[in-house]
Amino acid sequence: MSDILTQLDQVLVERKSMAADRSYVASLHQKGLNKILEKVGEEAFETVLAARDHAQSPSQQHEQALVAEVADLWFHTLVMLSHFDLNHQQVLAVLEQRFGLSGIEEKASRPQEAP
Amino acid sequence: MSDILTQLDQVLVERKSMAADRSYVASLHQKGLNKILEKVGEEAFETVLAARDHAQSPSQQHEQALVAEVADLWFHTLVMLSHFDLNHQQVLAVLEQRFGLSGIEEKASRPQEAP
Amino acid sequence: MSDILTQLDQVLVERKSMAADRSYVASLHQKGLNKILEKVGEEAFETVLAARDHAQSPSQQHEQALVAEVADLWFHTLVMLSHFDLNHQQVLAVLEQRFGLSGIEEKASRPQEAP
Amino acid sequence: MSDILTQLDQVLVERKSMAADRSYVASLHQKGLNKILEKVGEEAFETVLAARDHAQSPSQQHEQALVAEVADLWFHTLVMLSHFDLNHQQVLAVLEQRFGLSGIEEKASRPQEAP
Repeated sequence: MSDILTQLDQVLVERKSMAADRSYVASLHQKGLNKILEKVGEEAFETVLAARDHAQSPSQQHEQALVAEVADLWFHTLVMLSHFDLNHQQVLAVLEQRFGLSGIEEKASRPQEAP
Repeated sequence: MSDILTQLDQVLVERKSMAADRSYVASLHQKGLNKILEKVGEEAFETVLAARDHAQSPSQQHEQALVAEVADLWFHTLVMLSHFDLNHQQVLAVLEQRFGLSGIEEKASRPQEAP
Repeated sequence: MSDILTQLDQVLVERKSMAADRSYVASLHQKGLNKILEKVGEEAFETVLAARDHAQSPSQQHEQALVAEVADLWFHTLVMLSHFDLNHQQVLAVLEQRFGLSGIEEKASRPQEAP
Repeated sequence: MSDILTQLDQVLVERKSMAADRSYVASLHQKGLNKILEKVGEEAFETVLAARDHAQSPSQQHEQALVAEVADLWFHTLVMLSHFDLNHQQVLAVLEQRFGLSGIEEKASRPQEAP
């Protein structure tokens, strides 16, 4: 399971250089960064709406829809990272530094967010 | 590296039940779903702005800021999933189904997105 | 000029009850609130991107694009208000109360926003 | 009622040049365009959440909260326009051109949005 993001990053690199009419990812890159960022924004709003749907009427269908929206959101952030020749490793490194092995309560590293 | 999301999910479950004044995550849950969703939205916009900053003036500082914003965005989506007793495993399962091992060109599963 | 929003509100009320295939506005209402809210979200991100475009490379074209995105954003918020049988009058009343004739420095009414 | 946006535009121009510690608007300008755009984004998400709150549990309180969020959203787009020495007149001109006096069904000017 844990290697999915690594495989996905590889797929994204390969498709970045494909013809736009053969790959959705390639077409995004060809349309440019703004198009990719619009998709990130759309998926963020769709995630929020799916979360409200599931909170209002919990169901397996709404749960699956919510998970699918988060997957779309993460996917398009990975496309964006790939646009800058970055990948998910850097994101996980930041999360690890803040949470993973440091043992430091997250509030310490985000004092500005504390109530 | 690959276990960071698993560790993070565990941390998020633990902190969900902590006192709000001892954990930023606990304080988010206590304030309710809307507060968590507002944070997802904020981080999405900050990600977009950081991407434009890095595209306009590429630098190591802007690159780090962009990665940090994506980490914040992913982090708050994980808090949201935890709010519904979900976690990153379901998200990766969706991504795997679409990309990882299926070998199916992603366009096939997203025909509505094709140009 | 000042009556445009009033005229627009009237147009929105009329179109709300039209057949969906005869009006974009009617089709939004028929698809439901989430569709309208997705459009509000999309236009918000497109406004932000257009603002960055104009800041990075000021031009008449970018200025017009920015104004057009704000118009799209306002338009879809008016559609949303119409969905709840509300209109721009209530929005202006709130703005007037905060700024227009009260003479009160806006910081006073938004103390939480002060630096 | 119709002159509120004109008055507000004048107020925004005056405050743009005030000391940041005397005006919320001035402090936004001083922090820069990204800060203003973050606020536009935040208010867009808060508008969407307020709309869902009112749809789920209609009440006068939720209605007022929704209208207040739209006012906040419009307000921050006006601050953004002021940042570029633009104002609401240009936005209304676009809306008028599309809807107000032209008599043209809006679908005609937005064929790409048609179902």
